[in-house]
Amino acid sequence: MQQFDAVDVIRTKRDGGVLSDAQIDWVIDAYTRGAVAEEQMAALAMAVLLRGLSSDELARWTAAMIASGERLDLSAVLRPTTDKHSTGGVGDKITLPLAPLVAACGAAVPQLSGRGLGHTGGTLDKLEAIPGWRASVSNADFVRQLNEVGAVVCAAGDGLAPADRKLYALRDVTGTVESIPLIASSIMSKKIAEGSASLVLDVKVGTGAFMTDAARARELARTMVALGQAHGVRTVALLTEMSTPLGRTAGNALEVAESVEVLAGGGPPDVVELTLALAREMLAGAGLDAVDPADALADGRAMDVWRRMVAAQGGDPLAALPTARERHVVTAPASGVLTRLDALAVGVAAWRLGAGRARKEDPVSAGAGVVMFAKQGDTVRAGEPLLELHADDPARFERALAALDGGIEIGADYSPVPLVIERID
Amino acid sequence: MQQFDAVDVIRTKRDGGVLSDAQIDWVIDAYTRGAVAEEQMAALAMAVLLRGLSSDELARWTAAMIASGERLDLSAVLRPTTDKHSTGGVGDKITLPLAPLVAACGAAVPQLSGRGLGHTGGTLDKLEAIPGWRASVSNADFVRQLNEVGAVVCAAGDGLAPADRKLYALRDVTGTVESIPLIASSIMSKKIAEGSASLVLDVKVGTGAFMTDAARARELARTMVALGQAHGVRTVALLTEMSTPLGRTAGNALEVAESVEVLAGGGPPDVVELTLALAREMLAGAGLDAVDPADALADGRAMDVWRRMVAAQGGDPLAALPTARERHVVTAPASGVLTRLDALAVGVAAWRLGAGRARKEDPVSAGAGVVMFAKQGDTVRAGEPLLELHADDPARFERALAALDGGIEIGADYSPVPLVIERID
Repeated sequence: MQQFDAVDVIRTKRDGGVLSDAQIDWVIDAYTRGAVAEEQMAALAMAVLLRGLSSDELARWTAAMIASGERLDLSAVLRPTTDKHSTGGVGDKITLPLAPLVAACGAAVPQLSGRGLGHTGGTLDKLEAIPGWRASVSNADFVRQLNEVGAVVCAAGDGLAPADRKLYALRDVTGTVESIPLIASSIMSKKIAEGSASLVLDVKVGTGAFMTDAARARELARTMVALGQAHGVRTVALLTEMSTPLGRTAGNALEVAESVEVLAGGGPPDVVELTLALAREMLAGAGLDAVDPADALADGRAMDVWRRMVAAQGGDPLAALPTARERHVVTAPASGVLTRLDALAVGVAAWRLGAGRARKEDPVSAGAGVVMFAKQGDTVRAGEPLLELHADDPARFERALAALDGGIEIGADYSPVPLVIERID
Repeated sequence: MQQFDAVDVIRTKRDGGVLSDAQIDWVIDAYTRGAVAEEQMAALAMAVLLRGLSSDELARWTAAMIASGERLDLSAVLRPTTDKHSTGGVGDKITLPLAPLVAACGAAVPQLSGRGLGHTGGTLDKLEAIPGWRASVSNADFVRQLNEVGAVVCAAGDGLAPADRKLYALRDVTGTVESIPLIASSIMSKKIAEGSASLVLDVKVGTGAFMTDAARARELARTMVALGQAHGVRTVALLTEMSTPLGRTAGNALEVAESVEVLAGGGPPDVVELTLALAREMLAGAGLDAVDPADALADGRAMDVWRRMVAAQGGDPLAALPTARERHVVTAPASGVLTRLDALAVGVAAWRLGAGRARKEDPVSAGAGVVMFAKQGDTVRAGEPLLELHADDPARFERALAALDGGIEIGADYSPVPLVIERID
């Protein structure tokens, strides 16, 4: 590989220039090896944030991040592969019903997932609420489970895009998170390395999302779709609403229980709607357009796959889920229509109740979280239960209530907003 | 001191905001203590480079850098204090005749100086060519020598602006050197901490200078003058020409010898002119406007101070200076007028001959360098000696000659340019 001086590479981007393919390949490789220092990559990341990356630079940057590690070989998987990635929201348990549903319809879902940080929950944290369930799966078991069950949701191994793992941690402490090219390459390098032939992105917009602004969310979605396509992965994105939580629960075991309701043919309409919308996109990506996923929810096939998927990773799908020791009911302060139940407020409340973590090494509580008895647009009566807070330690209720302050509004008029805002392909 | 989150401080500047006094005080102090990591300061430095600092932010930033260490107390110095700082050039030995000259005229010159890096020489490297001379002086000896001799040129101790020492090393490896606020605060924090009551800045412009562009040099000069005045130091700047070397030598012992010629009342006219121009500014800053420094050069008083100044730091002012083992003559390629003798070309040649260093821990050769037999505007004849290269190792000549390639032009018409371009106060 051609050698460069890190300062020359930084200066090129700092002065608004275009990095060459060879410069990008070198800087990502050298950073991964430790030959480019953390402070040098920090300066480069700030220059990228402020100067941007062209689409060619970004495609190469992402390719270099993928090349820093292994790319999973799913050629031994017999079904068409398809995956989904969500940029994260409150009450976003969609992966739990979605992965078995899409598998029940004939595709294979190889999903390497993450843990939660801050107010958004993590899929692995939710699944770990199931007694016995293990997030860690070997590469050989990964392929075997895809063939035998059709879906795996597990932790990404250390071998996938190690450059991204280093860069992600660096960006977190250097104020360089909020860069669309850096966000897009971080997500897509991992997803492309995962080896799926098609991918559906759920890009959330709203107070509970990473992107609160629709224009920036759209730009991120377009950037990621282009990146996926440039790497030969059939990719589409849905921009979806995240101003209010998805479903009626935010918390780990609470969301597992709600997901099982959806798999049983019930559950909150918004969770069902988004699960089916994403399932249709994934099936289309897998070339299985003719299959209607609603049938597989209704007739129990998705539930069958769920149980096998949980059991394959050591979980007992029929075991009782953990519950928090303490509960606190929040009542409606007035009668009227619930015009606002803010996603960020509920997300921070759930986090403070113990469902989330502030640092990646923190433990989470399986039982903690928020149950919502009403959704935006519902009519409520003063004094009736609106929310129920669950925590192991009652001392947490006060801080959770403070997070909810200002997040709940009762009025007269409510205009429903569509859950799926836009489709980008 | 108020506490902040480093990421919040970085984000404020990244997004074009103004840092508060408390944020600046905290981030400089925390960085000096190691509580703000190198990668965080690198990201902040890049954000400052691309977003700038307001004059209020810059004044506070500089104050915080000064406050990171001690500010020398020169109240025991009986004469008015005045100092000079040059942004660095090729053949810039001006400090050597200037400091004793100004002392001979009645002021005290407390000059903390640096070593060279790259193609510009360092004053300490030059003085260290004198047998026995020591760059290190204790604070007590510093004040005593100022009272007894009138001038000290020595290395800055570790106690002065330690934040700058750390930040300077960081900027060097992170592509964040070329920021006018960061350059200005780096220079001025050290100069203000040095305790001089007045200061003259020699801001060089041209191929051999740090600033090749007059507009940027002027901006830097104005920024530094404002900073000095804001901190109660009477400060003026001269913008001076650095497209061709100063004098007829570039190298350590070679420049000492040339400086002694100037102190003896001779020497190259450009070195004499700039020495006197800077001396007049320094004397004006010290309230000694009535004294004509030209007299002190002519009558040997400046030479007397030079000898005492060298001897006070262990040097033998009458000892033979080191010479390089090997010489190589470069002849004029044509007859005509020397229209260009490029400062950068000569500076890089001297560096490659061994006079300079690439890394701060590298040694320098005392004898190496370039002697110029002609200056721009002189008439030369084809085949006659133009330059003489001095090196300890003849293998260095080839690379030095390559550096000179394109740096010498012989033609017909030459329009002299003024040495002092502009005065800024």
